[in-house]
Amino acid sequence: MNNPQLTKNGELKHLLSIEGLPKAILNQILDTAESFVGVAEREVKKVPLLRGKTVCNIFFENSTRTRTTFEIAAKRLSADVINLNVNTSSQSKGETILDTVDNLIAMHADMFVIRHAQSGAAHFIARHVAPHIRVINAGDGRHAHPTQGLLDVFTIRRYKPDMHNLRIAIVGDVLHSRVARSEIHALTTLGVPEVRVIAPKTLLPHDVERLGVQVYHDMNAGLKDVDVVMMLRLQNERMNGALLPSAQEYFKCYGLTQEKLALAKPDAIVMHPGPMNRGVEIDSAVADGAQSVILPQVTYGIAVRMAVMSILAGNTEE
Amino acid sequence: MNNPQLTKNGELKHLLSIEGLPKAILNQILDTAESFVGVAEREVKKVPLLRGKTVCNIFFENSTRTRTTFEIAAKRLSADVINLNVNTSSQSKGETILDTVDNLIAMHADMFVIRHAQSGAAHFIARHVAPHIRVINAGDGRHAHPTQGLLDVFTIRRYKPDMHNLRIAIVGDVLHSRVARSEIHALTTLGVPEVRVIAPKTLLPHDVERLGVQVYHDMNAGLKDVDVVMMLRLQNERMNGALLPSAQEYFKCYGLTQEKLALAKPDAIVMHPGPMNRGVEIDSAVADGAQSVILPQVTYGIAVRMAVMSILAGNTEE
Amino acid sequence: MNNPQLTKNGELKHLLSIEGLPKAILNQILDTAESFVGVAEREVKKVPLLRGKTVCNIFFENSTRTRTTFEIAAKRLSADVINLNVNTSSQSKGETILDTVDNLIAMHADMFVIRHAQSGAAHFIARHVAPHIRVINAGDGRHAHPTQGLLDVFTIRRYKPDMHNLRIAIVGDVLHSRVARSEIHALTTLGVPEVRVIAPKTLLPHDVERLGVQVYHDMNAGLKDVDVVMMLRLQNERMNGALLPSAQEYFKCYGLTQEKLALAKPDAIVMHPGPMNRGVEIDSAVADGAQSVILPQVTYGIAVRMAVMSILAGNTEE
Repeated sequence: MNNPQLTKNGELKHLLSIEGLPKAILNQILDTAESFVGVAEREVKKVPLLRGKTVCNIFFENSTRTRTTFEIAAKRLSADVINLNVNTSSQSKGETILDTVDNLIAMHADMFVIRHAQSGAAHFIARHVAPHIRVINAGDGRHAHPTQGLLDVFTIRRYKPDMHNLRIAIVGDVLHSRVARSEIHALTTLGVPEVRVIAPKTLLPHDVERLGVQVYHDMNAGLKDVDVVMMLRLQNERMNGALLPSAQEYFKCYGLTQEKLALAKPDAIVMHPGPMNRGVEIDSAVADGAQSVILPQVTYGIAVRMAVMSILAGNTEE
Repeated sequence: MNNPQLTKNGELKHLLSIEGLPKAILNQILDTAESFVGVAEREVKKVPLLRGKTVCNIFFENSTRTRTTFEIAAKRLSADVINLNVNTSSQSKGETILDTVDNLIAMHADMFVIRHAQSGAAHFIARHVAPHIRVINAGDGRHAHPTQGLLDVFTIRRYKPDMHNLRIAIVGDVLHSRVARSEIHALTTLGVPEVRVIAPKTLLPHDVERLGVQVYHDMNAGLKDVDVVMMLRLQNERMNGALLPSAQEYFKCYGLTQEKLALAKPDAIVMHPGPMNRGVEIDSAVADGAQSVILPQVTYGIAVRMAVMSILAGNTEE
Repeated sequence: MNNPQLTKNGELKHLLSIEGLPKAILNQILDTAESFVGVAEREVKKVPLLRGKTVCNIFFENSTRTRTTFEIAAKRLSADVINLNVNTSSQSKGETILDTVDNLIAMHADMFVIRHAQSGAAHFIARHVAPHIRVINAGDGRHAHPTQGLLDVFTIRRYKPDMHNLRIAIVGDVLHSRVARSEIHALTTLGVPEVRVIAPKTLLPHDVERLGVQVYHDMNAGLKDVDVVMMLRLQNERMNGALLPSAQEYFKCYGLTQEKLALAKPDAIVMHPGPMNRGVEIDSAVADGAQSVILPQVTYGIAVRMAVMSILAGNTEE
């Protein structure tokens, strides 16, 4: 089966999920992002790579935060940006999404950034679009959020360049996370020898070991001597369900505090995809502390999105 | 009485409705749009004609789709675009619309794109604005939606250039359509010899024959040997009223299927202003079929809107 | 205590309130705004002063009108503008505002325009941001709305340049106004010898005399021989409370009519910050009359905001 993310020549065509991306393309994105880190620090933070291109942020699910990152990235590339908040409640049928997309293609849009509550929405759209259109998945249900996964990997590489000697712990709601799975895939692809997941059984997928990770239910054991601690966001709605007793209880067992962080290596870095629930999955002292690279993640997120957009725009083959 | 759409010298000043536009101006818009069709296919889809101008999309009624077409057109002309969604429920008095408009004029806005649920709103605003301001009606109640009418005519001319030898059928809810009336006017002005309307009596205006059309209630008879089939959108709310029995019944009588389309000329084109109710006024096999020019309509819609904006911006006389 | 609005060298760093601005900086803003008045009248209304800068309009409280003025000003300076409507109801904790802001800083935003229902919000954010970020208060609760105050002073200076010989009356709800206090401060700082406030006792702060103004409860007495009449907007919600009997009664006592205006100097100008309640605090005949400079205020508002933004962007010291 051919890979819907790649052109016939094996170049990046859409960014739908990290799964299925060859190592060479992962490294191409990360290396290209390096060159955009500097752009954000210039006096004039603009490059003309997407001038005259139309980037449509089609958000079937509202997310001001994510939309802003893509809007800033596209504008720094000099693209024209159109924001569309599409109320899915007004859509009676699946075809209507395609009609919306077809209309924008007919208006000569060049790139779609898609956010949708349903898993697979971005793939569905990518399979449908004309050959010259590029699609970026900005989060589809529980499935994937590849630019988040990429910016996390980019951040790790920046702080811990020797990826073949890392021990990384991913902590929290792996089950419902759209980034954890992608990250595990990216990290193992890039040669990280040891990836751990730390979570209660109720927040882990059944087959999690098959992803090549070590499973811990005890945070103290799991954090021991790691180089990187990647916290996951706990969705508030999980609290009301049967999966978890309470936010206080969760924080006690799986919240990251200075005490628990002391079990990791002294130079370990702390990551979080945001937005944080301070006092639920992470203590403010850690979030704002010296080992936190949470805000650099955001900074690198712009560079990574600019890299993805510019690579997609440059690969004009079908 | 002088024409509010024209300058003293007879040039286009505002675009409020197709009625009242001389044939020469209709052709000027269509010919200018031709030159913009190519711009959308370029690598850099921008021309500097409106650079430094401020275009305000003032939408008193929400329509992401229509707003997007004007926003893309204005940005391709290099204008600065300001989107304003004005909640009319917060407006107690008629003057408040004018206060809103006066404020934007005072901010040196150059062009207003107005969408309003009330017929006549764009005319009302155009009568009020300062002489150097240009107004485009993007849909006012049941009254008019002239750029839609123009893009329809433009599409017909592109596919069937010899307009003096055409037979065109307009099918559906002519009564509530803001484009049907404009289209009939444009088509007869441009010399189309035979325009038919096909609809149940409940969806036709009383005086429809006076517009110079032939009336059909039977779709099989009406479609016979036509060159162009223009379908109209059926508003869902009509279904609940006394005007129509049901969506199924409507589709059976007035929905366009491959079988009915076979009655038209073999090279007949099928048009629809969108968004489509698939399975209500049009079958998906027709909408996505070889004779459909529904997506080219959308493409030409950008070119027509760029043409209108650039002509208005260029006519600086009062 | 050091002034949070000024750099170590005494230059403008943030614009949070007119209180605390030295006379020299007030005059710098007003003089710079003069140079931008002309830009709005050019064919191409753009200058490249903020090219490549990212301006974020963060509106925790919705205000299309105010947002539009800042968006137009920033775009005329060639900035990239990102609009964020942040629903404060979704924010459980104070830190979340700072997390939102920290994220935008990490994305290399350069300037924040902040609107918030709570007094002090812009100060709170300004104290928190990195040294190279600039903050403009676009209205925080009852506290301040400094660009409105500045545009009012700019308008007065344009029509009545000899500010040392003016008698100015501010009429209406001084108690709840976020501009009245700033304006009084600015006017006395710039040497206006006589500032009057005219209002019922229920709409005046207790300590109003301490601001250096003369207090009138009778409008006929207060308007006598003034050069400038500055009307304040009466919030509709005041009407329902115990502070005022009714809109009709208020208009009778404190609404500005042609008759009352005749008591002022023959060349007196009439101002209003908008949006107006016609027939409540001001009669339409006056609002649209020859002495009204209400729309020029809006025009100058763009020039003043461009001036503030360009001065802030130019002062790169900490």
